[in-house]
Amino acid sequence: MSNNLKGNMIIAQSGGPTVVINQSLVGAVIEAKKHKQIKQIYGSLNGIDGILKERFIDLKKENLAILKKVAFTPCAALGSVRKKPTSEDCVEIFKILQKYDIRYFFYIGGNDSAETANILNENAKKEGYEFRCFHIPKTIDNDLRENDHTPGYGSAAKFVAMAVMGNNLDNKSLPGVKIDVIMGRHAGFLVAAAALGKKRDEDGPHLIYFPEKPFSKEAFLGDVEKVYSKYGRCLVAVSEGISNKEGEPIISQFINETDTHGNVQLSGTGALGDLLSELVKTKLNIGRVRADTFGYLQRSFPGIYSEVDAKEAYEVGEIAVKKAVLEGLDGSIAIKRKQVKSYSVFYEPVPLNKVAKHTRSMPSKFINRAGNYVTQSFIDYALPLIGKLPEVEFLKGVPVDNKK
Amino acid sequence: MSNNLKGNMIIAQSGGPTVVINQSLVGAVIEAKKHKQIKQIYGSLNGIDGILKERFIDLKKENLAILKKVAFTPCAALGSVRKKPTSEDCVEIFKILQKYDIRYFFYIGGNDSAETANILNENAKKEGYEFRCFHIPKTIDNDLRENDHTPGYGSAAKFVAMAVMGNNLDNKSLPGVKIDVIMGRHAGFLVAAAALGKKRDEDGPHLIYFPEKPFSKEAFLGDVEKVYSKYGRCLVAVSEGISNKEGEPIISQFINETDTHGNVQLSGTGALGDLLSELVKTKLNIGRVRADTFGYLQRSFPGIYSEVDAKEAYEVGEIAVKKAVLEGLDGSIAIKRKQVKSYSVFYEPVPLNKVAKHTRSMPSKFINRAGNYVTQSFIDYALPLIGKLPEVEFLKGVPVDNKK
Repeated sequence: MSNNLKGNMIIAQSGGPTVVINQSLVGAVIEAKKHKQIKQIYGSLNGIDGILKERFIDLKKENLAILKKVAFTPCAALGSVRKKPTSEDCVEIFKILQKYDIRYFFYIGGNDSAETANILNENAKKEGYEFRCFHIPKTIDNDLRENDHTPGYGSAAKFVAMAVMGNNLDNKSLPGVKIDVIMGRHAGFLVAAAALGKKRDEDGPHLIYFPEKPFSKEAFLGDVEKVYSKYGRCLVAVSEGISNKEGEPIISQFINETDTHGNVQLSGTGALGDLLSELVKTKLNIGRVRADTFGYLQRSFPGIYSEVDAKEAYEVGEIAVKKAVLEGLDGSIAIKRKQVKSYSVFYEPVPLNKVAKHTRSMPSKFINRAGNYVTQSFIDYALPLIGKLPEVEFLKGVPVDNKK
Repeated sequence: MSNNLKGNMIIAQSGGPTVVINQSLVGAVIEAKKHKQIKQIYGSLNGIDGILKERFIDLKKENLAILKKVAFTPCAALGSVRKKPTSEDCVEIFKILQKYDIRYFFYIGGNDSAETANILNENAKKEGYEFRCFHIPKTIDNDLRENDHTPGYGSAAKFVAMAVMGNNLDNKSLPGVKIDVIMGRHAGFLVAAAALGKKRDEDGPHLIYFPEKPFSKEAFLGDVEKVYSKYGRCLVAVSEGISNKEGEPIISQFINETDTHGNVQLSGTGALGDLLSELVKTKLNIGRVRADTFGYLQRSFPGIYSEVDAKEAYEVGEIAVKKAVLEGLDGSIAIKRKQVKSYSVFYEPVPLNKVAKHTRSMPSKFINRAGNYVTQSFIDYALPLIGKLPEVEFLKGVPVDNKK
């Protein structure tokens, strides 16, 4: 299992950032410094775009104390990109990799980034270029196949849980219908995290809508009306990716922008929240209806992260380097959960094509039958991933007898 | 200066919540328990609406340990309301106050709430009803007259500073134009806080727009273009209250909802962000343009608060009770800053009509001449109010020489 491939290493980041994506970068760089097979450690700026433009930085020249602080700084320290290489790009990239004698390639990202790594790796094999290639997982969507969960999810889920706890208190203060739009293109894991801070039955979120279940405006209005008549208020968490029966995102009626992977823009707009808000206002005749779209705060808010998520993000970077250097492997590092009582994980290299391109959805056991809330099974799954939530407390509220 | 008025006390919360509004409630209740002049301590649910409906809870029956946790729980523990009493309401309220022998009245809120307290107090005088009445300040907008700053502002400003720090990192990762819409109906204090986490020249926010300066679409587009061509990206913080030369809110082109104080709905919609985003996309032909509206997160996010803000919020509650009970005063408690080198404040009772109804704006020395950023004077003013921000760090980024 030893590996004698010597050369330079390059590492890059791709796709939407997370709060812990630099943990993986720093974990990989610190590990790489230990191995004599790796000579130079290059960071490519803005993913494969940086390779094509030969925009590299020398990561061996970074001070260790700074690196450790960068690990706790949200978003891609090397810059990111959303770009799928064309076959011409691949030809060009190989010329550049050869020129710089790059033999170790690490790409931190989600399913699209795994696809990019896979394309490059397949091309390397075809061209007979000796090359170790690892995808290092990250996505707040938690939708990578083969993984129990992905780095970035725990911290984003913690942010969402906290934000919704606050929104519940706000909605209790000034009752009405409140709609929170939460990220998640195809998978409902993040919107589901809205439930993780709920303390009492009457607390919100009262309803959660997932991309996995066809969204019906009629059912939605019926649900909201029911909760509103019971509690005099209603807090709803909605995934930005909710789609109709035909699988078309509800938001695509408003937005037409797509990236080179063919993804429709879902975030960075309040359109979906405003549409749903308008619907409740007009159809249910409820006065106070508000919508907030949490947007990029979910993946970039400094200071709020899950300890376990930060640790795992660091370790997948570290282990990808070990597997490439010590065992001469290619692939992606998957996080698997041990089937034991207290939370514990192990890491497993898996083939690139098993995580590339296609995503996974929430298991159906995580969504209730009505398709409008999570199950206890989801809570048990997700709680260990987010760490400690802030404590909130309520007055006992002993009523005063009315005087005559 | 002694006061022998004996009777029951009522306390209520009104207007938009803050993260520290319960500090004031708990400060007042714990103080009130010490004074024999105060017999029962009633909490009215949902402000004056709770008085009109006689929905009171017995705050003496709350456990001290729970109260102390409630103090750190965001949003109005008693529930809030947006309601200006009519003259009929006032007649009704006095009947109820007399029936419950309420002689001490404390109303936690902003300028609209001070107005409500003022109306009640004027009516009490007119009717010859012996009555001590205090407004306890709170508003994330920081726009109460007579105050150096208001409880709730420091914590909301900290949230905004942190969110924008994260957005700067996100925007650096995936460059483009990013617009963050921040609360603040008439005053730019909160949007100005976007600058408080900025570390280096190239960091965002690059531009800040205030309700105090007429917003011109042409000037805005020119500013964005200039920043974008310099840094390849641009992060903009915009107040929800930006208005045209005629003083009409830009957002009022889209939204028509108003409350009983005559305020147009500005929050709980992504419309303004989306409008500005569309403008940049179409007029400047920039591909990646995103907008986030921070919305209610700014006033309700649990766990993020400024220590100094929490302490001051507690103390204004405590001192209002002292001034009413020990000195027999009516009024509002204003926070004044001592003119000394290190940050320090004192509290001063001021007449209700001096803080009621009208708000104050940002002093012009806090806004730069171009009207698109804050001055150092603002930074010096605001930094002591928000406490410690999380540390973020950047790679040194030593470029690798290009190989031939």
